Amino acid sequence: MNMVDIIMKKRDGGELTDEEIRYFVNGFTAGVIPDYQASALLMAIVFRNMTRREIFSLTAAMRDSGDVLDLSFIPGKKVDKHSSGGVGDKTTLIAAPVAAALGVSVAKMSGRGLGFTGGTVDKLEAIPGFRTNLSEEQFSTQVREIGLAITGQTGSITPADKKIYALRDVTGTVESMGLIASSIMSKKLAAGTDAIVLDVKCGRGAFMKSASSARVLAQLMCQIARENKKDAVAVISGMDQPLGLAVGNSIEVAEAIDTLKGKGPEDITKLSVTVAGIMAYLGDKADSIEEGIDRAMGTIENGSALSKFRQMILYQNGDDSVVDDPTLMGIAASSANVRAGRSGYISYIDALKIGNASRHTGAGREEIGDAVDPTAGILLKKKVGDKVEKGDVLAVVYAADQDKVKSAAQEAAGAFGISDHEQAKPEIVKDIITL
Amino acid sequence: MNMVDIIMKKRDGGELTDEEIRYFVNGFTAGVIPDYQASALLMAIVFRNMTRREIFSLTAAMRDSGDVLDLSFIPGKKVDKHSSGGVGDKTTLIAAPVAAALGVSVAKMSGRGLGFTGGTVDKLEAIPGFRTNLSEEQFSTQVREIGLAITGQTGSITPADKKIYALRDVTGTVESMGLIASSIMSKKLAAGTDAIVLDVKCGRGAFMKSASSARVLAQLMCQIARENKKDAVAVISGMDQPLGLAVGNSIEVAEAIDTLKGKGPEDITKLSVTVAGIMAYLGDKADSIEEGIDRAMGTIENGSALSKFRQMILYQNGDDSVVDDPTLMGIAASSANVRAGRSGYISYIDALKIGNASRHTGAGREEIGDAVDPTAGILLKKKVGDKVEKGDVLAVVYAADQDKVKSAAQEAAGAFGISDHEQAKPEIVKDIITL
Repeated sequence: MNMVDIIMKKRDGGELTDEEIRYFVNGFTAGVIPDYQASALLMAIVFRNMTRREIFSLTAAMRDSGDVLDLSFIPGKKVDKHSSGGVGDKTTLIAAPVAAALGVSVAKMSGRGLGFTGGTVDKLEAIPGFRTNLSEEQFSTQVREIGLAITGQTGSITPADKKIYALRDVTGTVESMGLIASSIMSKKLAAGTDAIVLDVKCGRGAFMKSASSARVLAQLMCQIARENKKDAVAVISGMDQPLGLAVGNSIEVAEAIDTLKGKGPEDITKLSVTVAGIMAYLGDKADSIEEGIDRAMGTIENGSALSKFRQMILYQNGDDSVVDDPTLMGIAASSANVRAGRSGYISYIDALKIGNASRHTGAGREEIGDAVDPTAGILLKKKVGDKVEKGDVLAVVYAADQDKVKSAAQEAAGAFGISDHEQAKPEIVKDIITL
Repeated sequence: MNMVDIIMKKRDGGELTDEEIRYFVNGFTAGVIPDYQASALLMAIVFRNMTRREIFSLTAAMRDSGDVLDLSFIPGKKVDKHSSGGVGDKTTLIAAPVAAALGVSVAKMSGRGLGFTGGTVDKLEAIPGFRTNLSEEQFSTQVREIGLAITGQTGSITPADKKIYALRDVTGTVESMGLIASSIMSKKLAAGTDAIVLDVKCGRGAFMKSASSARVLAQLMCQIARENKKDAVAVISGMDQPLGLAVGNSIEVAEAIDTLKGKGPEDITKLSVTVAGIMAYLGDKADSIEEGIDRAMGTIENGSALSKFRQMILYQNGDDSVVDDPTLMGIAASSANVRAGRSGYISYIDALKIGNASRHTGAGREEIGDAVDPTAGILLKKKVGDKVEKGDVLAVVYAADQDKVKSAAQEAAGAFGISDHEQAKPEIVKDIITL
């Protein structure tokens, strides 16, 4: 087999065999196939797309490139969730304890990575003492005893995906449905779950700009799951404006706690309960998605989800008094208000701009290895559809010093659109996709 | 400016500016832009093609990446010729002295490179004593005194093209009309000629398989020449079977001498005279292409072209007695006949297969830096359309040892097709393209 032949075959519209795809993935990961051949193939894939069969092969080859976790030592059906990424997305912090409260085994490994805010693991570390480096034994024991554990990723999962993604990022080859789907699903399959809820975002703050493209990606990922004998359901959710009001780390944990108390913003409540309800359905704890969602809402109303969250904090060495007083997580030294320049109705809040402003407060990472400032971030005071008067506070920006606050506030101010006309509140859950 | 933006612009069908193309060419040549970004851009170009403007910009940027020769110190209009490469192509050895005999200034720099046989410089070195490393002064004096000199390339011409071509070769991005045209023309423009005849081959032994694609490439190259205020005319010539009968180095020189004596094969005679006639026309030594071709034929008939060739050999320190007795160039130690397995008419002679067999005799290079065996090669005894009886000799294979001869002979045997039906002799000159 020869890499140039493989590139030319794809370039000319041919379908690569499983062997050819594994030759590429393994050779590239091992450093035998050079970057420049890999990027030529990736660009040819961007133009030619991949067949379903090719996507399945690529996913499997990337899954097998590193450790493939075996969670069978944890009893019960393990149900994972994945988000395609958004601004203010604290869904895991809410949906995981809700699902666990319904009896689902939630054994979740989360990452840090780059982003507008920290990853789930970074957010949890805003809770004083919270440990995210559980040993396999602790992880297993905790899931067995309370049905819920969230820990940092261990071992080397899908090194091929990491290497290919890094190359795509610098060669203009990110935008390919098949490459995106196989990248996500290879990681999820390697993480050893039995079933998965895929939260696919769409809108100006998401990778998929339209609901229709999000639907195509969602379907493709569900097909990959089915091919691998895993159950999967996808939720198409809106990401035009940030999710909820908080964008940061400690402030997102605080909002998650509020939500678990039944006092959270409507959008994040609805989405978290939907995701958790589907997790319950996939984990055989509800007979239908509707029933799962109803029962999920019940765990918020009866306090059992909040108890589960508190239990997890205690098991993972955290200070559970933050549940009663989130200010114990600390507050950034500086802050500034973003005010409305005119009266009217909020017509849009550009999630991307808020996300970038958040990263510039120090809440997110510019480069891998950067530390995340747990107390920095942006707290929205208004959402799309809200009526505002000139001078009203639209958002509060938190950061370690006045310079960061100022520039982030200016950036955040540019994210808001105000119109003379009334605006409808956008739907958060746009569709639920089952195969 | 940012390379990822440039890649994505091309990927999405945009037209790159002159500045963007120079940013890429200069950055890549300097090693600042990595291979993997260059290959992604090249693959996007393969899919999107380039506009005329982009092709002109790329050609100019590559031309300017190294030395740009100034031949103005040589009086008169300098006319060059270029061949897109073929098997048995000794046209330069004939057309150059013919054109010079008509008064054209032929100041030719030729390469070695990889190939089925050596390059023009390697072929000339089969003549005992022949020097191909003339100093600039010798080169200039010789052209001024006899109107003809052929020497090896000096200086560093178009390093960008060399680097880009090497990358295209290993990333499946050779096949792009714009990339091919700009590669050829950047070299020719840097070589400082005033006018050029482009011999664009088509057929199974050529890069362009069809006459129509050869025509498109030829037109594109003529447009690039015009954009740069150089005169250019293209000849579309057939390369289904090898050109002439000899494929090698000394045997090609011998065939060139025969042709200059008026005893050469019909196809190589016709093509060489056509190319030389157009050179005369472009060099203002004939009022029309037809007149140029007529007068070119005349230089063969009256012996002036052969005299010019002999003169060049003497000026470049060679032994001109080879003109009278080509066997003085030596004969390979081993040889074998390739015989017809059946009676009939030769229906095809696969030029590519003959070319590869020739390389395996040692006549060509497998890798840059390899030595070329001047006495090895393949001498055809039959051409397409010839009638043969079973057992007739189709070709003789020459090499340094029996092993090489045997395997090359086997390979050469597979190149011949024999049919029961009479076959027309293919036309060698298929078209002449002027803008």
